[in-house]
Amino acid sequence: MTQKRGSDATLAPVHSGALHSGEGAASEGKEPRTARGRRTLRAILDAAAAEFGEKGFHEGSVSGITRRAGVALGSFYTYFDSKDAVFRALVRDMSDQVREHVAPAIRAAPEQIAAERAGLEQFIGFVRKHKEIYRIIDEAEFVDPESFRLHYQTTAERIEKRLKAAAERGEVRSDVSDVHAWAIMGMNVFLGLRYGVWSEDAEASAVADTVAEMLARGLSAK
Amino acid sequence: MTQKRGSDATLAPVHSGALHSGEGAASEGKEPRTARGRRTLRAILDAAAAEFGEKGFHEGSVSGITRRAGVALGSFYTYFDSKDAVFRALVRDMSDQVREHVAPAIRAAPEQIAAERAGLEQFIGFVRKHKEIYRIIDEAEFVDPESFRLHYQTTAERIEKRLKAAAERGEVRSDVSDVHAWAIMGMNVFLGLRYGVWSEDAEASAVADTVAEMLARGLSAK
Repeated sequence: MTQKRGSDATLAPVHSGALHSGEGAASEGKEPRTARGRRTLRAILDAAAAEFGEKGFHEGSVSGITRRAGVALGSFYTYFDSKDAVFRALVRDMSDQVREHVAPAIRAAPEQIAAERAGLEQFIGFVRKHKEIYRIIDEAEFVDPESFRLHYQTTAERIEKRLKAAAERGEVRSDVSDVHAWAIMGMNVFLGLRYGVWSEDAEASAVADTVAEMLARGLSAK
Repeated sequence: MTQKRGSDATLAPVHSGALHSGEGAASEGKEPRTARGRRTLRAILDAAAAEFGEKGFHEGSVSGITRRAGVALGSFYTYFDSKDAVFRALVRDMSDQVREHVAPAIRAAPEQIAAERAGLEQFIGFVRKHKEIYRIIDEAEFVDPESFRLHYQTTAERIEKRLKAAAERGEVRSDVSDVHAWAIMGMNVFLGLRYGVWSEDAEASAVADTVAEMLARGLSAK
């Protein structure tokens, strides 16, 4: 009972409803130093999400990104070394955005099953507004395998950590493991694809209820 | 109690341990008519799996496939119209191979949770021997979105059908739905990636045991 639930969640500030600041996204030595610079960087990342989400990495271009962002080509290279660099930054940025979007609901939940339920509901909601996230993260498997792997490994580790903290508090079975974490992540990814990206024919809350009921019994302390 | 468990599984003959025959894989009007032709087609599909698995679709080539298969370029075009056509055929072939590999264990299980357990264990085993399957099916999202979607939709429908048949037999809760099916598929895909492709640091049987225990309680009839 020593760990506070949600203590594993990101320590970064949560931008309520807004996009992630993009901090740390620029290429090495190119971090923006002013608020205006940070806004430009953010605009470039959002434009990159639209460009790569619509055209894919190979067809997408730096000029397409700067056109969407309404910035000069020189501004792009002020912050990023290349198309590869902005794609890599974008994968990490989207990974951060998802985490920051779901974290408050997970932290606010009264116990761990409710937390997992809230996390899934928020995730489906996020995906519905950012359908390009699947295409971008999935394409990373080919364009930038390291970012792809890092995204899923850190997500699974975060889930495992919060399950183990919940086990210490007696909220879930004591032997929760990496297998449970990967199972939950896999469920969430495919439920997000099916009920977030491909079709919105079910309420996110109803999908989350069904999963939470299965987990409540499947992971119960006894 | 009217449906036989596993009656939803493929009706195609199961090639014990061997590869799928590749039936229906050739381009329209190019189906092989002899046993020798079918063997060549099979060799081309296996070579395509190696070529695209190693190089990806864009870097992979028809000449790379024929070299690996030890067949003349003309033989390739006897059965396939193009690189796109063989890729599309390969995605469906791998989808069929997975299904045929796991079906016997699912059919042989005494009840549905044991069936899901056996299916996952067999799936991880299959993936360990065919690590290229992830790269190929995942790349289909970009190269051939229709095949990608078809693979997951038909897999989820198959799971839903067998869960509903099990519910009728009283083996799982009566309200099993598409959400449960997508959740199970998502778990299996990510557990296969983690414990089949990325690392073999856990026994497939132990991973399957953990999931089966969660499902046994999570889906129990009451």
